[in-house]
Amino acid sequence: MDELLKQALLYDFYGELLTDHQKEIYEQFILEDLSLGEIARDAGISRQGVHDLVKRCDRTLQEYEEKLHLVSRFLTVKEQIHKIREILDQEPAEDISVLKSEIRKISDEILEEL
Amino acid sequence: MDELLKQALLYDFYGELLTDHQKEIYEQFILEDLSLGEIARDAGISRQGVHDLVKRCDRTLQEYEEKLHLVSRFLTVKEQIHKIREILDQEPAEDISVLKSEIRKISDEILEEL
Repeated sequence: MDELLKQALLYDFYGELLTDHQKEIYEQFILEDLSLGEIARDAGISRQGVHDLVKRCDRTLQEYEEKLHLVSRFLTVKEQIHKIREILDQEPAEDISVLKSEIRKISDEILEEL
Repeated sequence: MDELLKQALLYDFYGELLTDHQKEIYEQFILEDLSLGEIARDAGISRQGVHDLVKRCDRTLQEYEEKLHLVSRFLTVKEQIHKIREILDQEPAEDISVLKSEIRKISDEILEEL
């Protein structure tokens, strides 16, 4: 997965566990795509300081995922829902009993994940 | 929701953020259903100490949920999957196009949640 997308996803799940200061800086870097220099100027800290803070946030968010695996669980469920969508979109449509049994199977897998 | 079930669910999601000592005691209380007195004897601490530790773990896990809402998101998805199952189990079966459109609608709702 693209590094920036991964960071945004981890932030979406665990961002509230960062401090307000960390959230402010990290959001500017990850979500608003400002440069380290721009963020540093606005926050009145050094470019290196911003860099270190971003790296620390990356590590913290990654550590939450290593402990909780919730992003990974959510992504698995999301993929399975997309599989259901593909089955629904098949043309020509499956026989109704085949369709039901395929969706039932995936929904079982999702419930095991939840 | 039943208090013990809620505690077990929060522990399932966020338990790894507790310390090893907290996990050990909390699991004995929540999952193994030992009494405060039994846990206190095994751990060599007071009954009050066990009580305080359990209460602190309850608060900590609850605070994670207030920040992250991940249990609530998972429960919502779970309910929606059960709705899909109900549609699949309807007898007599719906017309295939109705069935597909109903499941598509719920899967859209799930994707918004993920």
